[in-house]
Amino acid sequence: MSTDIEIARAATLQPIGAIAEAAGIPDAALHPYGKSIAKVDTGAIPGFAEKPDGKLILVTAISPTPAGEGKTTTTVGLGDGLKRLGKRTMIALREPSLGPCFGQKGGAAGGGYAQVVPMEQINLHFTGDFHAITSAHNLLAAMLDNHIYWGNGLDLDERHIAWRRVVDMNDRALRSIVSSLGGATNGFPREDGFDITVASEVMAIFCLARDLADLEERLGRIVIGRTRSKRPVTAAELNAQGAMTVLLRDALMPNLVQTLEGTPAFVHGGPFANIAHGCNSVIATRAALKLADYVVTEAGFGADLGAEKFFDIKCRKAGLKPDVAVVVATVRALKMHGGVARDMLGTENLKALEAGLSNLARHVENVRKFGVPAIVAINHFTSDTPAEHALIQNFCRNHLGVEAVICRHWAEGGAGTEELATKVAALTESGEADFAPLYPDAMPLRQKLETIAREVYGAAGISADAKVTARFAELEAAGYGNLPVCVAKTQYSFSADPTLRGAPSGHIVPVRELRLSAGAGFVVAICGDIMTMPGLPRQPAAERIYIDAHGQIEGLF
Amino acid sequence: MSTDIEIARAATLQPIGAIAEAAGIPDAALHPYGKSIAKVDTGAIPGFAEKPDGKLILVTAISPTPAGEGKTTTTVGLGDGLKRLGKRTMIALREPSLGPCFGQKGGAAGGGYAQVVPMEQINLHFTGDFHAITSAHNLLAAMLDNHIYWGNGLDLDERHIAWRRVVDMNDRALRSIVSSLGGATNGFPREDGFDITVASEVMAIFCLARDLADLEERLGRIVIGRTRSKRPVTAAELNAQGAMTVLLRDALMPNLVQTLEGTPAFVHGGPFANIAHGCNSVIATRAALKLADYVVTEAGFGADLGAEKFFDIKCRKAGLKPDVAVVVATVRALKMHGGVARDMLGTENLKALEAGLSNLARHVENVRKFGVPAIVAINHFTSDTPAEHALIQNFCRNHLGVEAVICRHWAEGGAGTEELATKVAALTESGEADFAPLYPDAMPLRQKLETIAREVYGAAGISADAKVTARFAELEAAGYGNLPVCVAKTQYSFSADPTLRGAPSGHIVPVRELRLSAGAGFVVAICGDIMTMPGLPRQPAAERIYIDAHGQIEGLF
Repeated sequence: MSTDIEIARAATLQPIGAIAEAAGIPDAALHPYGKSIAKVDTGAIPGFAEKPDGKLILVTAISPTPAGEGKTTTTVGLGDGLKRLGKRTMIALREPSLGPCFGQKGGAAGGGYAQVVPMEQINLHFTGDFHAITSAHNLLAAMLDNHIYWGNGLDLDERHIAWRRVVDMNDRALRSIVSSLGGATNGFPREDGFDITVASEVMAIFCLARDLADLEERLGRIVIGRTRSKRPVTAAELNAQGAMTVLLRDALMPNLVQTLEGTPAFVHGGPFANIAHGCNSVIATRAALKLADYVVTEAGFGADLGAEKFFDIKCRKAGLKPDVAVVVATVRALKMHGGVARDMLGTENLKALEAGLSNLARHVENVRKFGVPAIVAINHFTSDTPAEHALIQNFCRNHLGVEAVICRHWAEGGAGTEELATKVAALTESGEADFAPLYPDAMPLRQKLETIAREVYGAAGISADAKVTARFAELEAAGYGNLPVCVAKTQYSFSADPTLRGAPSGHIVPVRELRLSAGAGFVVAICGDIMTMPGLPRQPAAERIYIDAHGQIEGLF
Repeated sequence: MSTDIEIARAATLQPIGAIAEAAGIPDAALHPYGKSIAKVDTGAIPGFAEKPDGKLILVTAISPTPAGEGKTTTTVGLGDGLKRLGKRTMIALREPSLGPCFGQKGGAAGGGYAQVVPMEQINLHFTGDFHAITSAHNLLAAMLDNHIYWGNGLDLDERHIAWRRVVDMNDRALRSIVSSLGGATNGFPREDGFDITVASEVMAIFCLARDLADLEERLGRIVIGRTRSKRPVTAAELNAQGAMTVLLRDALMPNLVQTLEGTPAFVHGGPFANIAHGCNSVIATRAALKLADYVVTEAGFGADLGAEKFFDIKCRKAGLKPDVAVVVATVRALKMHGGVARDMLGTENLKALEAGLSNLARHVENVRKFGVPAIVAINHFTSDTPAEHALIQNFCRNHLGVEAVICRHWAEGGAGTEELATKVAALTESGEADFAPLYPDAMPLRQKLETIAREVYGAAGISADAKVTARFAELEAAGYGNLPVCVAKTQYSFSADPTLRGAPSGHIVPVRELRLSAGAGFVVAICGDIMTMPGLPRQPAAERIYIDAHGQIEGLF
């Protein structure tokens, strides 16, 4: 078997104009970036706004394990499978972050024969969207400190600045700094720090904005800190939102690429799935729905975090109505949820598999609580046995009332997902979908969080100390009580303990802190240690990345 | 008269493919970025390496004043003038820096009817080159601190790290910081700081590299600090140069745009003209010379800094042979050099003008010391009088033996520079050019600096304290004595005192510090206060920048 990069390199890409034309995007709406990538100006597509929406298919997964689930790969494979059935299909994915490429992780553009290409560009600078987001974020930071420097007319409390700086790089040295040192001409020294760009609220805003005007309004609502008298201060009070929008104008057009099988894909935006909602941009998803009859998209982490936020934040706010949720599982990962160690995953173990199915069951049941019909995709690995497959399929049919389909897209591309595609397409026509968010806007923040904890995590409830309790009250009083809640907790467990695999029940979710993302439009509930700036490992991948004698990039994937 | 932005917006741009085709660049060599910008892969141009080189014309200027000289505008206007004469012409310019756009300064793409377009994109993210340079620079910084974090096997002395971080933003709060605070998991606290991206040595390397292989070698030679035993440590010892090159691969292709009159222009790279050499990339200049019969390029600041470095650093190292130097002057700026206050520049003042001509004379004589024939371009302003023009022209003819041509490109485009273009073209055919750098590689560093000070600045010599004297010796001993010297001093005077206009003589140039740019291949002599991270003004331009109801960017220029 070839590696991902070998497969990607061996592919003959179609000119992006041909991909666009087949997708109904005229040349006038294309802003090419090289020969295989283009930004799409949907305003230049005749009759765009009046087109009916296609079907929206969410690909989500069981709780992640080190064994790997293959959510992006399945998203791409399902898109290719639908296209093979003759369906007008588009895929909508998140953009990968550049920084982590130089640490441990490989690319994030699918794998095997289910990839979006050109993978090198997608994983590196791509169309510069993340650079634009970095610039916009740091412009606001510079304007903030500049405001303090020139007299601090807004009376900002330097001890309570809520706007850090960002860089798209794994750089632990910047997590916590003291800035403005070196004397009076450099400002007033204060504690500060950097997050990685994907953790920026600008990224979340970018991905939730409907258009440029909405983007600018949201940027203006960002709360950057508070006055000495505790009044929240916004970016609009610094008049920063206009220039930030200018920096993001071109970036806001979705990026069109193709899969190895020529299926058109938007790859646009990529917020964290813990302190943010973890989905590609609303603009890309809505554009895909106008252009295609079937849109396959994904959400970060497992369904407890990714699908919940996709439904309760993105779909609620963007008015999207998902038609089907595909829950991806692998035999190996389910065995890990059943207690098998990583080095024993290659051996058939029906007992452990059966135990691990509790995790899958909880996710499937959760998805259906939103009124979205579910189907299970079993992402095939060579070590799987027929008995293991049969066990999963029987369990799904008999205990969950859903289908579980074996998928071989990694080895076979879209040919390996035709059965899944056929059943997914049928489900979208079944009339079963009746989407509704889990809780109403009007529910108080604390109750929203309790609802998610009980209904989605299987918890007995939440815990909050006096400080967090006061913060709930403060946010309600300030008028933010109508926002959805974005939970930042470990992705490895339904609980807040990453070692509790399977489907733990009756636990308490400890809320450590509440953070307001007023521009993005949600309140983040921090339930555990959340890292917003990764570090590099002892031997960073960067040491082995280079351009070979043929001009090819080596070591990146 | 319309503003620059109104003129730029009113222009109908040709598709970049048409500009390329006229310049002899086939479609296969184009990597488009939107409809009006493309990167050019010269490797895909048949027979490229074998093409003969065109004539190289440098546009430089008198010592800058607040009155403005219009060097970029004249570069563009002269290119358009040559094209109007039927000459196959290309222009090569620096890329503007994004950060300063939000401070005080407007765009850097020419002005009036002598502009390169699309000006908004060129002044903002353009093709992302500066973002790529920022990423490559900060990757090295992250790898450096990561190396210390994981055990510091190279024994780097944290007190003597020579590699700061960069951001393309005016952000004084980041000039001086303490990093790696917050506990053991964040590393070892140390003093650090950020420069603006254009001040990065990666930028200088990018602009001096001949190709990807040369780029990688130069990046590996960067000295990032020293061991406790004072041995210099390089980026290659961190194995960083490969990944940095990968980040810069696409950026290294020159960016093709057009002037308002459709003249093709490469806009590529943009290092500081004080701590670096201040010219666009060698790759762009060399590509233009292969494609055109006449290449018009510029260098930063006045000829004492810009032209000297263009000749002694860029041309020496890249093997370029300039054919003509155009020295740009304005009546207003010459009157300022003659002692007139800024608010009195609109009044005819022949006496002050005559005094100010000393500045022009020194620059013209300097240029000729490199064996390059000179011509003066008088960039016309509406307040100029015929007597003032006549005074300059007679002085140039009678005392300097050069022509001085009135140019009206700002108001008239290429039609306003036809006379200049005709005379420049004649000069390139005159056989007068016999380029040689000012000093040989083998001259010791201190003597190189003394040569520049005496021959170019009219100084009596240089001063250096014991520490600087020891540093000269240290650099010679370490094998860097053969590098050219890059002087960082005020651009406003031949002396180190920015208030001394005209042509001061007999002064002493105080050398405060020597910095090694081993990757770029020069030794920087700091002679004065050099700011490598600007701040924002009290009312930053960013506060007035926004997108209007028609989707147009307002307030940027």
